[in-house]
Amino acid sequence: RINGERLWASLMELAQIGATPKGGVCRLTLTDLDRQGRDLVTGWARDAGMTVTIDQIGNGFMRRAGRNNALPPIMTGSHIDTQPTGGKFDGNYGVLAGIEVVRTLNDHGITTEAPIEVAFWTNEEGSRFVPVMMGSGVFARAFTLEHAYAATDTEGKTVKDELARIGYIGEQEPGDHPIGAYFETHIEQGPVLEDNDVTIGVVQGVLGIRWFDCTVTGMEAHAGPTPMALRKDALQVATLLMQDVVGAAHRHSPHGRGTVGMVQVFPNSRNVIPGRVKFSIDLRNATDALVDEMADEVKAYAAELSEEMGLPIHIELVSSYPAQGFNPGCVDAVARAAHKLGYSNMPVVSGAGHDAVYMAQLAPAGMIFIPCKDGISHNEIEDAKPEHITAGCNVLLHAMLERTGV
Amino acid sequence: RINGERLWASLMELAQIGATPKGGVCRLTLTDLDRQGRDLVTGWARDAGMTVTIDQIGNGFMRRAGRNNALPPIMTGSHIDTQPTGGKFDGNYGVLAGIEVVRTLNDHGITTEAPIEVAFWTNEEGSRFVPVMMGSGVFARAFTLEHAYAATDTEGKTVKDELARIGYIGEQEPGDHPIGAYFETHIEQGPVLEDNDVTIGVVQGVLGIRWFDCTVTGMEAHAGPTPMALRKDALQVATLLMQDVVGAAHRHSPHGRGTVGMVQVFPNSRNVIPGRVKFSIDLRNATDALVDEMADEVKAYAAELSEEMGLPIHIELVSSYPAQGFNPGCVDAVARAAHKLGYSNMPVVSGAGHDAVYMAQLAPAGMIFIPCKDGISHNEIEDAKPEHITAGCNVLLHAMLERTGV
Ligand SMILES: NC(=O)NCCC(=O)O
Ligand SMILES: NC(=O)NCCC(=O)O
Repeated sequence: RINGERLWASLMELAQIGATPKGGVCRLTLTDLDRQGRDLVTGWARDAGMTVTIDQIGNGFMRRAGRNNALPPIMTGSHIDTQPTGGKFDGNYGVLAGIEVVRTLNDHGITTEAPIEVAFWTNEEGSRFVPVMMGSGVFARAFTLEHAYAATDTEGKTVKDELARIGYIGEQEPGDHPIGAYFETHIEQGPVLEDNDVTIGVVQGVLGIRWFDCTVTGMEAHAGPTPMALRKDALQVATLLMQDVVGAAHRHSPHGRGTVGMVQVFPNSRNVIPGRVKFSIDLRNATDALVDEMADEVKAYAAELSEEMGLPIHIELVSSYPAQGFNPGCVDAVARAAHKLGYSNMPVVSGAGHDAVYMAQLAPAGMIFIPCKDGISHNEIEDAKPEHITAGCNVLLHAMLERTGV
Repeated sequence: RINGERLWASLMELAQIGATPKGGVCRLTLTDLDRQGRDLVTGWARDAGMTVTIDQIGNGFMRRAGRNNALPPIMTGSHIDTQPTGGKFDGNYGVLAGIEVVRTLNDHGITTEAPIEVAFWTNEEGSRFVPVMMGSGVFARAFTLEHAYAATDTEGKTVKDELARIGYIGEQEPGDHPIGAYFETHIEQGPVLEDNDVTIGVVQGVLGIRWFDCTVTGMEAHAGPTPMALRKDALQVATLLMQDVVGAAHRHSPHGRGTVGMVQVFPNSRNVIPGRVKFSIDLRNATDALVDEMADEVKAYAAELSEEMGLPIHIELVSSYPAQGFNPGCVDAVARAAHKLGYSNMPVVSGAGHDAVYMAQLAPAGMIFIPCKDGISHNEIEDAKPEHITAGCNVLLHAMLERTGV
């Protein structure tokens, strides 16, 4: 069993770097604060006898040797960058849980057969630089190192320059080493475990995501003198389509998700009929076939509406992340560990993207979720209970040991 | 018959003051440009032998004596302030049409029985200072002079100081003199006349207006990990209510109008379920009973939705303008003039508020509408045809002469 108090203390210490007055953390990727966070974590790793390697995109690999170092490492990890108004647990938990696994093995003098690596991936959040999950994406060759290097923040600073500036541009080529298996512990970022009063979520896979921008074009006109029959009210048409985004998710339950998160109305004046409305569409489901079916339905309804109302509707794909089922062996290892340790557990899906999605393209992978308060993340009030933090890390320990061999 | 070319030339000359590159006019109330406009117009009035009086709220009364100056004047007018991206015709046309009526009477050596007054009302547009229709509102005692004086622009400047600065704070007490009748010519600001290919709109009255702000409060959450059943999506509920605003207008045809012009979504992020949505509601109809019925229906539906969805919905009245039917005698005088002059005409309602609404509380009043291109106003591309400008002014001349006596 891991040392829950030590893990909690490390989480709280790391959360001091970039701590916000409201109890959250703002530690954007590749800032000075990110460097301080990286320095603290790699220091802990060295103290625990691990070797540290940084690759060209700044991903960190903290390695504990095994008996047979020719075996590919059993890896765990996550990220330590946060949202601008982020919390103490998102990502950070997954990295420090890995360190705690190693510290626990040290405490008990256990040497594993295969080596263990704890990774922190650069820029998972995507708040400062797009795309999200940048470090793991480069590692998995979802896009090139050059593409990632060229990304700029709002001030025009590039990933490459910022990596060099904070001293975390390594020599190792991303993705050059094989991985035996990958596990990632993470707060759920949703309300399902809490709602079911369950400690461990055995993650079956990650939903496929499609992001679209939709623009409805009408004709702006004075709200008073323009009779209803002569209007081209872009918002009125847009609201019908916004409802269908949610409708499509309900039609494709249980894992369908449909969200309109962002809306801009032009000219946005009280007595002017909207001439143009732009809004985002976020569709998710357990398989790519299902999420594509949802997208097709929304597009078909948009075409129908456009025809019926005589207003152009333009829908553009912005990003697409394929659905990713996790390796049955890894999923079972997580479930077995939770059962053995006596933690209540249930199969769940991850609705949010994670570095584990890219790792699953390279190696057998699985994730362990724990509840977070009210399902809230990406918020300074993000919170998790110490007993759940401990439980998730114990499950990680046992799932990893099953794979490393002892 | 009036001199259409002279009227057009005056309109174009006034439009030079504050002319915008796109062919519009930006002459905000109580600015230096407004002073230049006032100076030009009062100069024309004096050239036409009129006396000019300014009242304490800066309304201007340009008077042509009659044979019997004990009779209350027959008045016409409008405003010469514009929207920030306004056009050449809105308001300006109504004032210059009045001047052209006087010039025409001078040309023909006609003396009327009752005197004639041409008014320009301060701050009709309400873009710089609220409330709208300020000068006519003070004149009609809808609110006090002190209330109007205290209004501030975004820089904190008051109406009183700005009036004094441009030298248009007069001595006459607003509303101190009785009016025999009031007529106002105006571009329609809507598409009905153009749609019916009709030259003169015989305005029956002005719709009642109710402005509300509506806030739907949900719970922001991550768009991925939050299942549909556990969401409190403020936008999803708001879109249903937005549709009912339009629905209420359709249920109360032909004059019902329902518009959501302004929407703010919080936090307005692609992968966050909206936690709060704020939007404006603009309801209008021909009688106060009808517009109140529309408001009651929308509020009842909001209460039902709130109950059903478990999300608080708050609806707050922002402004209310009563419906105003025009005096049947004045309405008929407009219709008779149009018939006599051979202009196609039809009864219409004004969907927008005008200074004539306040004048109708003091005296028999009526309005004359002419078509504007594509029904567009409050826009630099606002446009009207010279023959319509001429026609409206001819109708004004004859309607006024019927009331003044010759
Ligand atoms: N874990 C996480 O918040 N990922 C961001 C991308 C998304 O799933 O919306
Ligand atoms: N004439 C006009 O545009 N009035 C503004 C107030 C309104 O009717 O919305």
